[in-house]
Amino acid sequence: MTTTSPALDTALAYHRAWTGADFEKAMTYIAPDIVCDAPAGRIEGAAAFRSFMGPFSQIVRSATMLAAFGDEQTALVMYDTATVPVASAPGCEHVTVVDGTITHMRIVFDRAPFDAARAARESG
Amino acid sequence: MTTTSPALDTALAYHRAWTGADFEKAMTYIAPDIVCDAPAGRIEGAAAFRSFMGPFSQIVRSATMLAAFGDEQTALVMYDTATVPVASAPGCEHVTVVDGTITHMRIVFDRAPFDAARAARESG
Repeated sequence: MTTTSPALDTALAYHRAWTGADFEKAMTYIAPDIVCDAPAGRIEGAAAFRSFMGPFSQIVRSATMLAAFGDEQTALVMYDTATVPVASAPGCEHVTVVDGTITHMRIVFDRAPFDAARAARESG
Repeated sequence: MTTTSPALDTALAYHRAWTGADFEKAMTYIAPDIVCDAPAGRIEGAAAFRSFMGPFSQIVRSATMLAAFGDEQTALVMYDTATVPVASAPGCEHVTVVDGTITHMRIVFDRAPFDAARAARESG
């Protein structure tokens, strides 16, 4: 399913780290000046990215890569995650990689089940 | 960004049709027994798929392909859409193609802004 792609290698290494309970290692694949377009809006810089993905990585129970492609500078992956509040939360990431770190990421996932789980907790 | 991929050719033809106001042509790329895993759950069969994607195709104002990869049997695409209720609604599709039609699709997008737009309409 893949060809030789330096960008995909980086995307997969990042994925293995953040889904494998080694978030500090995951951050080594993130450029200091990363721009991340997420469902809630644009996130700029590694510190802000850490605040976004760090908490999510802590509620992930398991992850399965569904599809992964890449070329010299970009990669596109889709995965499913099982999380504490949501049983199946698939996500998709399109990344640009420069010198082994991710400089841009667009991440697509459905916030609705997370919003519903939060509302259920708050009302319960 | 792409290599020769029959599956990607089909995924792109489907995409061009449904985002180009030719939903009937788009349906010609959908297998009668398609299984589609969407944010709200599994959709089975072309009739149910039509009920899911048809209304969405009608509220799309424009679409931009952000990334597209494929191999012999599968393709993975990410695109952005501008829709009537939501200005930017990116989506990602992983498709399996058999004999020129899509037999399986996993589609990931964020339902939250659509839910919010609906709530705003209903309360307004």
